[in-house]
Amino acid sequence: MSTQSQKSALVVSAHPGDFVWRTGGAVALHVKRGYRVKIVCLSYGARGESQGAWKQPGATLDAVKRQRHDEAQRVAELFGAEIEFFDTEDYPLDLNRAMLDRLVEVYREVQPAFVLTHASADPYNYDHPDAARFAQQARIVAQAAGHDPGAKTLGAPPVFLFEPHQPEQCDFKPNVILNIDEVWDIKRQAFEFLPAQRHLWDYYTRVALQRGAQGGRNSGRSATYGTAQGMTYGEAYQRVFPMVLEELA
Amino acid sequence: MSTQSQKSALVVSAHPGDFVWRTGGAVALHVKRGYRVKIVCLSYGARGESQGAWKQPGATLDAVKRQRHDEAQRVAELFGAEIEFFDTEDYPLDLNRAMLDRLVEVYREVQPAFVLTHASADPYNYDHPDAARFAQQARIVAQAAGHDPGAKTLGAPPVFLFEPHQPEQCDFKPNVILNIDEVWDIKRQAFEFLPAQRHLWDYYTRVALQRGAQGGRNSGRSATYGTAQGMTYGEAYQRVFPMVLEELA
Amino acid sequence: MSTQSQKSALVVSAHPGDFVWRTGGAVALHVKRGYRVKIVCLSYGARGESQGAWKQPGATLDAVKRQRHDEAQRVAELFGAEIEFFDTEDYPLDLNRAMLDRLVEVYREVQPAFVLTHASADPYNYDHPDAARFAQQARIVAQAAGHDPGAKTLGAPPVFLFEPHQPEQCDFKPNVILNIDEVWDIKRQAFEFLPAQRHLWDYYTRVALQRGAQGGRNSGRSATYGTAQGMTYGEAYQRVFPMVLEELA
Amino acid sequence: MSTQSQKSALVVSAHPGDFVWRTGGAVALHVKRGYRVKIVCLSYGARGESQGAWKQPGATLDAVKRQRHDEAQRVAELFGAEIEFFDTEDYPLDLNRAMLDRLVEVYREVQPAFVLTHASADPYNYDHPDAARFAQQARIVAQAAGHDPGAKTLGAPPVFLFEPHQPEQCDFKPNVILNIDEVWDIKRQAFEFLPAQRHLWDYYTRVALQRGAQGGRNSGRSATYGTAQGMTYGEAYQRVFPMVLEELA
Amino acid sequence: MSTQSQKSALVVSAHPGDFVWRTGGAVALHVKRGYRVKIVCLSYGARGESQGAWKQPGATLDAVKRQRHDEAQRVAELFGAEIEFFDTEDYPLDLNRAMLDRLVEVYREVQPAFVLTHASADPYNYDHPDAARFAQQARIVAQAAGHDPGAKTLGAPPVFLFEPHQPEQCDFKPNVILNIDEVWDIKRQAFEFLPAQRHLWDYYTRVALQRGAQGGRNSGRSATYGTAQGMTYGEAYQRVFPMVLEELA
Amino acid sequence: MSTQSQKSALVVSAHPGDFVWRTGGAVALHVKRGYRVKIVCLSYGARGESQGAWKQPGATLDAVKRQRHDEAQRVAELFGAEIEFFDTEDYPLDLNRAMLDRLVEVYREVQPAFVLTHASADPYNYDHPDAARFAQQARIVAQAAGHDPGAKTLGAPPVFLFEPHQPEQCDFKPNVILNIDEVWDIKRQAFEFLPAQRHLWDYYTRVALQRGAQGGRNSGRSATYGTAQGMTYGEAYQRVFPMVLEELA
Repeated sequence: MSTQSQKSALVVSAHPGDFVWRTGGAVALHVKRGYRVKIVCLSYGARGESQGAWKQPGATLDAVKRQRHDEAQRVAELFGAEIEFFDTEDYPLDLNRAMLDRLVEVYREVQPAFVLTHASADPYNYDHPDAARFAQQARIVAQAAGHDPGAKTLGAPPVFLFEPHQPEQCDFKPNVILNIDEVWDIKRQAFEFLPAQRHLWDYYTRVALQRGAQGGRNSGRSATYGTAQGMTYGEAYQRVFPMVLEELA
Repeated sequence: MSTQSQKSALVVSAHPGDFVWRTGGAVALHVKRGYRVKIVCLSYGARGESQGAWKQPGATLDAVKRQRHDEAQRVAELFGAEIEFFDTEDYPLDLNRAMLDRLVEVYREVQPAFVLTHASADPYNYDHPDAARFAQQARIVAQAAGHDPGAKTLGAPPVFLFEPHQPEQCDFKPNVILNIDEVWDIKRQAFEFLPAQRHLWDYYTRVALQRGAQGGRNSGRSATYGTAQGMTYGEAYQRVFPMVLEELA
Repeated sequence: MSTQSQKSALVVSAHPGDFVWRTGGAVALHVKRGYRVKIVCLSYGARGESQGAWKQPGATLDAVKRQRHDEAQRVAELFGAEIEFFDTEDYPLDLNRAMLDRLVEVYREVQPAFVLTHASADPYNYDHPDAARFAQQARIVAQAAGHDPGAKTLGAPPVFLFEPHQPEQCDFKPNVILNIDEVWDIKRQAFEFLPAQRHLWDYYTRVALQRGAQGGRNSGRSATYGTAQGMTYGEAYQRVFPMVLEELA
Repeated sequence: MSTQSQKSALVVSAHPGDFVWRTGGAVALHVKRGYRVKIVCLSYGARGESQGAWKQPGATLDAVKRQRHDEAQRVAELFGAEIEFFDTEDYPLDLNRAMLDRLVEVYREVQPAFVLTHASADPYNYDHPDAARFAQQARIVAQAAGHDPGAKTLGAPPVFLFEPHQPEQCDFKPNVILNIDEVWDIKRQAFEFLPAQRHLWDYYTRVALQRGAQGGRNSGRSATYGTAQGMTYGEAYQRVFPMVLEELA
Repeated sequence: MSTQSQKSALVVSAHPGDFVWRTGGAVALHVKRGYRVKIVCLSYGARGESQGAWKQPGATLDAVKRQRHDEAQRVAELFGAEIEFFDTEDYPLDLNRAMLDRLVEVYREVQPAFVLTHASADPYNYDHPDAARFAQQARIVAQAAGHDPGAKTLGAPPVFLFEPHQPEQCDFKPNVILNIDEVWDIKRQAFEFLPAQRHLWDYYTRVALQRGAQGGRNSGRSATYGTAQGMTYGEAYQRVFPMVLEELA
Repeated sequence: MSTQSQKSALVVSAHPGDFVWRTGGAVALHVKRGYRVKIVCLSYGARGESQGAWKQPGATLDAVKRQRHDEAQRVAELFGAEIEFFDTEDYPLDLNRAMLDRLVEVYREVQPAFVLTHASADPYNYDHPDAARFAQQARIVAQAAGHDPGAKTLGAPPVFLFEPHQPEQCDFKPNVILNIDEVWDIKRQAFEFLPAQRHLWDYYTRVALQRGAQGGRNSGRSATYGTAQGMTYGEAYQRVFPMVLEELA
């Protein structure tokens, strides 16, 4: 349960795998830092992100959804995060007004210090930009005094877009690299809860190592610059809105 | 004098006015925070940024340079910053290898925690992108072990580009807004040391107010979002390299 | 009433405030020049743009809409423009086919010499790009001979996008600055008809002054270039389609 | 009928004219090369692309559609391609879920070696980007094992966007020029099956000649570079996804 | 000779052919409208744009330059324009400070109402962007009171970039189309003064026809929109700075 | 020596490491395919890319250059490629006209079927874009009949930009992925010839694996799409000019 002073964060993910590969480090890290982290998982990815599950004899939509629900639930527990499933269809997402209203409620209840969602373009998977638009649309509605008047409105939490599968093809340009060394073992462990996407385990381990190396280089903490302490694992994000600072360094 | 633990910052400016209008708040603020701030002023802007001075009867290049030197020196003193003049010609800048080597030395001596310079494009004034390239080129050379071997090399300080006169025409997209409320009175006072550009005093006062209002809105500190404490004056920057974070909020 | 030779213009605005802050000068100026100007105001902005109104005890959606209707009506009268309300919901806009058909009719009836609407992106307010797409979609349909066959079709009026609240964040790059000196007092007076957004009065006064100063600079009419007559207030626009000219100056 | 070894291609076009002007050469060429080429024509363009037809006395929507159907059918036959009409309305396109499912079936049945569709932006005609999104959305759904489980899924055929009417205004940047010399006479003949758009015959003949000249220049086959054999007619395309090569030349 | 009230224009061209293909219509048209038009031709294009000339037996650099000088001179006379040759080498351009100073003098003497030069990128020919930068750099220096103090400075004439050979590859996005119907015969005649580039005559005739057709469409003067008077030949330009208007239509 | 029918390729690299990490696979692969591959290595990277070497006691510029020369020579031999060193200084590159002329000669002598060089932007290392511009500039000059008249000119070989260290920060968008499985062991072996950059061995192994996985996905050869044969190692390139094709698949 959230106390008044506990900070919180919100993740809006199109499918279960996304919040593991793309932002699992941020989730686990902020839980470790004492944040309440809530994940909204819009769909089970049953049609598009469950190739492995459909190879099982007698697979049905319900069975696949249940399997993915359980996997995602276990990962959320491993991370120490809350998760809520909107159970919309995927490929394509079938988002509606009631879901928008529910997401607005979630924003207002969670009052996140920051929001994590998908990038704005992905020619390989239109569910991702659709989820991103939905997440940002709901954030804006949650700020409006006239939506469900009397309810506590939302401030202006920053939005961080997480890394798509092929970043350059999605016009993704990271401006933030998060050091996830402290929680890498947890993130890596979560991969194993997703046996149907085994081919991605190594891929996203390498993504973490590349972003870690880049983080070291951009912060001057890498071996190249002769600093004692480096970083090894990272996650890349693209911050949407300008940040407001009291000091530049 | 810089003690070992004092943080420092470096500003590279094409002409004297630039470091006043575009980044005077950052300079004064970080001095107030205890930073050593060094300004490298590449030219006196004698040809291109001294329209007023040339209207005085008998104006000569030397006299105009001396006047601008004195103005810039006084502003630097007001800010509590160091200033070094490279005295290259302006319109266009006539930068050479010796100046590059000197700027590399400055980087290595100052070891800035961050760097402030011009944006990468300006169709109204090519001295600005030329200065920006020069400042960033020197930063890279200062990192190279083989340049003046044995000297202490530079780490990877972040670079912030300051706001050009007509930002959209320069493809300037701010991702950082610095709150300069604490030092606004100093920045505004500095404007008056530049009598030849009186027509810009109000212009840059309004820039500060607009960026302040945007800062409030982006941080949720503005009146719109019902928070007690807002901000009034801001300076906008575009951070060049990704930032490395241990936490997102 | 429009005579055959009277030129006309069409404004499509998501919320009432938009046509005041962003394009009030163009509306008043062209009315003064003898144009018939028609404003289509898609929503009352009751949910998202009426923060002040909801602070009144006992506020209801109907009451807020009525208040905003009256404010917008009064501003239109002040400007000498016609206004038609589509009364869709806002946050998000709930535009439908009937509204599209009605807007097509308006285009064909008004036969505007130019169209004013929102910019194509706004991460702070998705109603704005939604309105822009709707306005441009209707313009295209109005050109189609097969829509409501027999009705007079539309030519190819240019579209000007008006300035969003934080232009760089919306990828807004102005290529037109309109001199609104003649009607500035009217535009400024209109601000006061919007008491709930009092925090924007000064903001948009400064926007007008900045665009005015830039207009002077881009036309060589500013004091900097030693010309007698300058301009003081401006509005910035982004023209969507190429302009066709008989002479370049 | 498609034998196992026959290669195939799929074209998704908003209106009948589009597949003639923009990609008629590719269709005819690949048929000549032995491909099965299937065209999905989403609408008849009855409202927006049939200005000429509506000038006939007594024109009705049905009559216009029938006329355009017959024209498109004749062109497809001339090209040796299959054509399927989805008969959605145009201006705007009124695409629905059943049409998406049908297009997914087509993808899976045709198993195209490549896909041809519209560019992603067109401020003159929103039906074009709407068709492009629909075509790419369906391609992605066709890859998903969970959509109509058990059916043969689709691989990852490349997508080529064909040239819009005013390419620079649509942010169209060609990276492929197809030599259509072998089939130019067929393409040109097809123009004459579209009498209502006679004003475009010469326009698209010139487009073919310009792209041909550019193709010669980019391949070093033009007279400029002194090579014996040039090319005369071309079609420009923008390939969406990276190509995978075993050799660079 | 220029009288006080005569308007003037300045063209800065890398090679002789450029001002013919890319902007010959604008030159001839404005001369016809009573403008003084001055062309600065930076190089003779002897190395890179004279493939034909070098095929003549015994060709020397001097002879090629003389031939191109004569051709360019004849075209300028046909257009009724002045021409000044800077005779720098081409491929690459070898521009120096003395040439910059001379171009500044030309700007100040001509006081052009507008400037025509190359686009900012051209991966096929780096002389073009180099010339463009040089032309814009000189324009800025000509505005500076401190350059050759006492001389009459330049105002802020708009800059129009003319169309490169393969516009999309040069990120050229036209926002102005000039109607050159009145002078097309002159422009076409000029082509024949350039026999070495005969392969471009038809190419640039088609460019003019395409831009003419687009001009008609963008202005609603084309047959498509049922207007009596169309336009046939056009030249496309990209205006660099915002235009300042007193009225939008 | 090159026989008439042997195809060839040219690589232009700023420093020795670059042609190993970024394009070593392409070099080795095309040698294996029977190409003559020539590498022009502009500098020894002695100042900027030899951090390790400078840590050796008594290091001098000459000694460092000699060491890097030997390493690069050994790698070239391993690859079976020719290499020519221009021995310009690095950080910054100090390229001059004689070097440009020499590179033009190389282009004309090699007559490459394709060219490999750096990307056009790199805020971490300005030597890279400087080398890229130089390589492309020389290619254009080599096409000019008037440069060293009588020599055999160059055709229009395509240019492929190789992958920078942090691709998104360099606006690098790959449109070609080369399968380097056949030569991966050679590329990996070459890494070990560069002991001073040991921290990059794993980094670029992961780059190759990521590009390999993406290559599989984009070609439908990956496990995801159920095809038997995949690819494991790749190199990403950005093709500069449109490709001309006789068939799209």
